[in-house]
Amino acid sequence: MKTVRDLGEDALIQRVCGELSQASQVLIGPGDDCAVINHGQPHSLSLLKTDAVVEGVHFLPSASPRAVGWKAVARVLSDFAAMGGSGKELMVTLAIPKETELSWVDQLYQGMSQCAEQFQTTIVGGETTSVPTGNAKVISISGRGQVEKNQLVSRSGGSPGDFLYVTGQLGGSLAGRHLSFTPRLAEANWLTKHFSPTAMMDLSDGLARDLPRLATASHCGYAINPAKLPRHQGCTSEQALDDGEDFELLFSISPKEAKNLETSWPSSLAPITHIGNLEQSGGELKGGWGHFE
Amino acid sequence: MKTVRDLGEDALIQRVCGELSQASQVLIGPGDDCAVINHGQPHSLSLLKTDAVVEGVHFLPSASPRAVGWKAVARVLSDFAAMGGSGKELMVTLAIPKETELSWVDQLYQGMSQCAEQFQTTIVGGETTSVPTGNAKVISISGRGQVEKNQLVSRSGGSPGDFLYVTGQLGGSLAGRHLSFTPRLAEANWLTKHFSPTAMMDLSDGLARDLPRLATASHCGYAINPAKLPRHQGCTSEQALDDGEDFELLFSISPKEAKNLETSWPSSLAPITHIGNLEQSGGELKGGWGHFE
Repeated sequence: MKTVRDLGEDALIQRVCGELSQASQVLIGPGDDCAVINHGQPHSLSLLKTDAVVEGVHFLPSASPRAVGWKAVARVLSDFAAMGGSGKELMVTLAIPKETELSWVDQLYQGMSQCAEQFQTTIVGGETTSVPTGNAKVISISGRGQVEKNQLVSRSGGSPGDFLYVTGQLGGSLAGRHLSFTPRLAEANWLTKHFSPTAMMDLSDGLARDLPRLATASHCGYAINPAKLPRHQGCTSEQALDDGEDFELLFSISPKEAKNLETSWPSSLAPITHIGNLEQSGGELKGGWGHFE
Repeated sequence: MKTVRDLGEDALIQRVCGELSQASQVLIGPGDDCAVINHGQPHSLSLLKTDAVVEGVHFLPSASPRAVGWKAVARVLSDFAAMGGSGKELMVTLAIPKETELSWVDQLYQGMSQCAEQFQTTIVGGETTSVPTGNAKVISISGRGQVEKNQLVSRSGGSPGDFLYVTGQLGGSLAGRHLSFTPRLAEANWLTKHFSPTAMMDLSDGLARDLPRLATASHCGYAINPAKLPRHQGCTSEQALDDGEDFELLFSISPKEAKNLETSWPSSLAPITHIGNLEQSGGELKGGWGHFE
C-alpha cells in the first residue's frame, strides 16, 4: 500500500492540489508562499495562508510555550513577507490534549499576541479542540495578509541571468533561532517598494530544498557557490544549505537592478548577500527538510 | 497544576481571547461563529473562520475519508451560514503521520472538493505537515466567507420575547449524519434576505450547549419545551438536546416577523420549528458536547 512517505511532501501537494478548480478572483492558487486573491480593493490584494507547528516536529515538548507561540505566528508573517506583503487578521486553531496545563496555553497566547502586535496584525478568533491523550499538540495559524498591487512578488517571475540574494545568515537554526526569528517584513517591504525583485520566497526547509522550488516555479536552473553562503557563526556550508527554518528571504532580481540594490540597501535592515544566479538550466542541490521523508 | 480540563472549552476561549486587542476594521472578533472584517468593499463584509476535525474525536479511524473531507469543509460553511453569509476561499491544513495511505489522502481531498464545489467555494491552498507516528490525523479548514452588509446576523442581537427557531431535525447525528450533513447556506440566505433574524448560530455542540451561548451573547434568558423539539426518527428529546453535530441553524426573530416567516417559508428548504422564546432571564439547560470535559 503506497503511503505519503513514499511520495514526499512536494509531490503530495502537487497531487492533491492538481484537481482543485480555481475561481476567477484567485490570482495565485496552491503552490506559492500564499494564495493571492483580488477582493476588489483598488490598490491592494489579499494574501491567504495557513501554517501549523506540531509538538515533536516543529518544537520539543520542553520548549518555552511563549516561544512556540511566537514561532507559530512569525512563520505565517514570514510567508506574507515572501509575497511582498504583511499580516492583517489571523486565526488560531489549538488542538491539544485535555491534560495540557493552563499555564502552557496562557504563555502560548502571550507569545502569539506579542508577535502579532509587534507586526501590526490582529488575532481575530480561532478554535480549540481536544486531541486524544498523549498525542502531540498542534497549533495552526491561518489568516489574511495584504500586499500593494505593485509590490506583489511570486515565486515564478525569475529569468535566467537574474542574481540570487538571501537576507541575513543561514544554518544552525536548531540552536534556538527557529523559535525566536524575526520575520523579514521590513526587508520585504523596503525591497518591493524600491526595486522589482522577479521572484521571492522565504526559506523554511533549507536553501537546498527551497532554491530548487523557486527555480522550478520560474522555469529556470540555478548556480550558487555554497562556500559563499552567509552563515551563522560556527555553521558549515552544509548546515547553511540543509538545516532549514532560517526564515530568511530568497529573491531574484535583474543584474541591472542588483548593483543599485547593493549600494542602496539600508544598514538598519538585515544584510543581503549575492549567492549566485538563475540559469537557463542546471542546479543539483539536494537535501533540506521534507515532511514525510 | 491546573489543566484545560479543569476549565472547559468556553472558559478557556474566554480566558485566552480576553487579552487580544482588535484592530478597527474588525467588527466582530473572537466569540461568534465567525470573525467579521470590513475590507472596504461597498456592500459586503468578510467572514473569517477556522475549524478542525481530529481522528478519534470528530471521526473514527474507520470512517470513509471522502466523508471526513466533506465534513471538514461543511463545518466551516455551516459557520458562514450562521452569520448569514457563504464561503469564498478555503485553505486546508493536513497534519498526518508518514504512514498514512495515499489513497486515504486522495479520497479526503475528493470529499473536500466535492463539498466546496457544491457550495461555490474555492480551495486556494493549504499546508501539509507530519505528526509523530501513531498520532491522530488533524484536518483544519480555514478561510474567508462573505456576507452582504444588510444580511449579517451575529449571536448577540436577540431580545426578550423573540421567538426561537431551529431548522431541520435534531439528535442522533452519530448514526452518520455528522459526516454527511448539508450546511444550511440556502436557508440562511433566504432567511436573511427576506427577514431580519435578531441572532443566529449553527448547532455544533448540541442545543443544550449552544442555546445558552446564544442567549448569553444576547444578554437574555430563554425558555423552550424539550418535548416539542423536532427530532430525527427514533431520537429522544434528550438526544435532540445533547448529541451535538446537528449543524442546523438556531435563530431568534421578533414575534411580529415570526408569523409572516412561518407562512412564507419555502417548502424547498429544510423546515423550521418554533421551539421557544428568549426571555428576560432564566433557562437551565445543561449538557451537550464540550471539548476538554
